[in-house]
Amino acid sequence: MSQLTEQPAEGPVPTSADVARLAGVSRATVSYVLNNNTAVRISDPTRRRVREAATELGYVPHAAARSLRAGHSRMVLLPTAHLPSTPLHHRFLHGLESGLRRLDYTVVQYGSIGLDPDDAARAWAELRPVAVIAPGSVPLAPQGIAVLRRSGAKAVITLGPQPVPGAHALITDQREVGASAVRHLLERGRHRIGVVMPAEAGPALFAGPRLAGARRAAAAGRARVEELPLHYTEESAAALAARWSTLGLDAVFAYDDAYAMLLMRALQDAGIQVPEDTAVVGADDSMLGRLLRPRLSSVRMELATVQPLADLVDRLVRHPGTEPERHDLLRARTVHRESS
Amino acid sequence: MSQLTEQPAEGPVPTSADVARLAGVSRATVSYVLNNNTAVRISDPTRRRVREAATELGYVPHAAARSLRAGHSRMVLLPTAHLPSTPLHHRFLHGLESGLRRLDYTVVQYGSIGLDPDDAARAWAELRPVAVIAPGSVPLAPQGIAVLRRSGAKAVITLGPQPVPGAHALITDQREVGASAVRHLLERGRHRIGVVMPAEAGPALFAGPRLAGARRAAAAGRARVEELPLHYTEESAAALAARWSTLGLDAVFAYDDAYAMLLMRALQDAGIQVPEDTAVVGADDSMLGRLLRPRLSSVRMELATVQPLADLVDRLVRHPGTEPERHDLLRARTVHRESS
Repeated sequence: MSQLTEQPAEGPVPTSADVARLAGVSRATVSYVLNNNTAVRISDPTRRRVREAATELGYVPHAAARSLRAGHSRMVLLPTAHLPSTPLHHRFLHGLESGLRRLDYTVVQYGSIGLDPDDAARAWAELRPVAVIAPGSVPLAPQGIAVLRRSGAKAVITLGPQPVPGAHALITDQREVGASAVRHLLERGRHRIGVVMPAEAGPALFAGPRLAGARRAAAAGRARVEELPLHYTEESAAALAARWSTLGLDAVFAYDDAYAMLLMRALQDAGIQVPEDTAVVGADDSMLGRLLRPRLSSVRMELATVQPLADLVDRLVRHPGTEPERHDLLRARTVHRESS
Repeated sequence: MSQLTEQPAEGPVPTSADVARLAGVSRATVSYVLNNNTAVRISDPTRRRVREAATELGYVPHAAARSLRAGHSRMVLLPTAHLPSTPLHHRFLHGLESGLRRLDYTVVQYGSIGLDPDDAARAWAELRPVAVIAPGSVPLAPQGIAVLRRSGAKAVITLGPQPVPGAHALITDQREVGASAVRHLLERGRHRIGVVMPAEAGPALFAGPRLAGARRAAAAGRARVEELPLHYTEESAAALAARWSTLGLDAVFAYDDAYAMLLMRALQDAGIQVPEDTAVVGADDSMLGRLLRPRLSSVRMELATVQPLADLVDRLVRHPGTEPERHDLLRARTVHRESS
C-alpha cells in the first residue's frame, strides 16, 4: 500500500507550490511537467523529480485553477439523456467522450431534467465549458446560446432532431425513421398505415418528427396515415386493439420495438393476425424484436462514427468564429422480418 | 428577443467586477446577490439593480472561481453508468441529482469508461469535487480514495455491490436478487436450478453477486445450482437449449428479463415446455416480460428514496470526519407470473 493512504486525509490540500518546493523547481516547471507540456525543454531527471514530489504529496492539478490561469478551459459539457439510454445512444455518447478525452478535453455530463432551457444554459455557463453539446430535450433558445458564448464557450453545439439558430447542429433527423418504415410498408403493398404516438413525455420528443417523416413518405405513395396515441401500458394497448377493426388499417409503424411489442401482443390477444390482417414495424432493431413470433420488422438506425465528430468539436473550439455548421448523423433503413 | 443576442459573442467574458461597476455596488454585493446569500441584508432595489446589470451584461457566476475564493466547492461528481441504464437506475440517479440540486450542489457526471480506477480518481480529483459518488464499475482502491480526499473531497461514497475500505458505501446488494429468485423457485418445488451467467462485460459485474445469493439460498433449501454461461445472442441461446435435456435442470434464474426472454424463446423453439419442464425467472420486472407467453416471473427491485440520500450526502460533506458509513439501498422480491 502506498504511503499516500497513511497521510492524514484532513490536512490542507497540497498545491503546486508545495510540489515545487519539494522538487526544488519553479511552479511554472511543475505546471509544464504535470500538464505534459512538451513545448518547453525540461530534463528527464527534473521531470522525474517533479512527478515523484507530486506522488509523495498526493497532488493532482486543479482543472479549474488551470483554466483560470490559462484563460480558457478544456471542459466539454455533454448532455445527460432524459431517458434510459438506448444501446445505440449509449455507444455514441461514450465513443464521443473517449474521442474528446484523446484530444485532452475533460468531458463532464450535466443532468438538466426539470430545468428550463435558459436556466440550463446558465447552470452550464457557471462551469465555464469551452464547448457545450446540448441535448435535443433541452431546446436552447438564442438567449441561452448567447449566455454560453458570453461565458467563454467557443462552441455551442446542439444534438437533436432540429437545429437551433446560432448554434452548430448535430442532427439526428428522426423523420427518416418514420419515412423508412412507411416506404417499406408501401413496398409490402400496405396503404392504410397507423403511426403509434407514445403518450410518454420522453418518446414524444422523437414521435413528432417520426410522424412527419411517415406522412411525407405516405403522401409520396398515395397512402393514408392515422395517428394512434398509446400509453406504454397493457390497458392502453388492449383498448387500442379492441377498436382496431373500426380503424380500417392494414399496417402500423409502432414508434419503436418496445411499443411494437406491446401493441403486437395486444393485437394477437384480440385475434388480429400479424402480418396477414395488419403488418407491424418497430424501430431500434433490438434483439427483443427478433425473439417475437412473428419476428418483428424494424427500422435500424446508425449514427456517424465518433472520432471524426470529436475532431469536429475540436476544430469548432479552435475556430470559434465558424459559421453555424450542420452535420447529419442518423441513417435509417428498415430490416424486413416476418411481421410485415 | 433580448438584447443579449445582439451583443457580439466574441467579446471579453463579463466578470462580476463589470456587474459591480454597472450596478454601482461592490463585488462582494454582486456575489451575495447572485449566490442568493441571505445571511447579508441587502435592499430589494439593490438586489434588483444587480440582477438587471448581470442580465444586461450576460454575466453568470463562475462556479470554479467561486469555489477557489470560498476554499471549497459545491460540486458533486456522480457516476456515469457503463451500461445503457435501466429505468430503475435512471430514475434513481436523476432523483438523486434533483435532490442534491435542491441543496444547492452542482451535480456533474463524469464518464470513466476505459480508465483504470486510480486514473479515474485522479481525473475526478482535478475537478475538485466536494463529494464523489463512484460507480461500482470503477472499483476505487484506497490510493484513489486518498487522492480524492487530498484534493479536497469531503465525502467519497461508492455506489455498488461491495463496500471499499475507507469510503462510505451505498450498497446495492445484488445477492438478494439471486436469493429471492431461488427462494421463489424452491417454493414452487424446483430443486435443480440453473443460473444464467452473461458473458458480456457489463452484466458480469452484477452476475457474480447474483449467483452468490442464488447459491446461498439454494444451500439453505438443499437445492443444486448450476452456472450457465450465455452470450446475448440467439446462437448462444440455441446452443444452450440444444443441450438442455442433458443438464437435468427443472428451473432457471436467467439473470434479467432480457436474458430470460432470449433463453425462454430458445427453450420453446427446442420443444421444452415452460414452466412444465423448466421454470424460468427473470429480473427487472419489465413490461416486456409481462408480454411474453407464458408471462415471465421476475425479481422486482426497488431502490431507497432519493431525498434522504441527498440529505445523507450533504451530512457527510458537512461532517467529513464521519467514520465510513454503509447504507443498503436495494430491496428485491419475486413477482410470480406464469413462467414458474
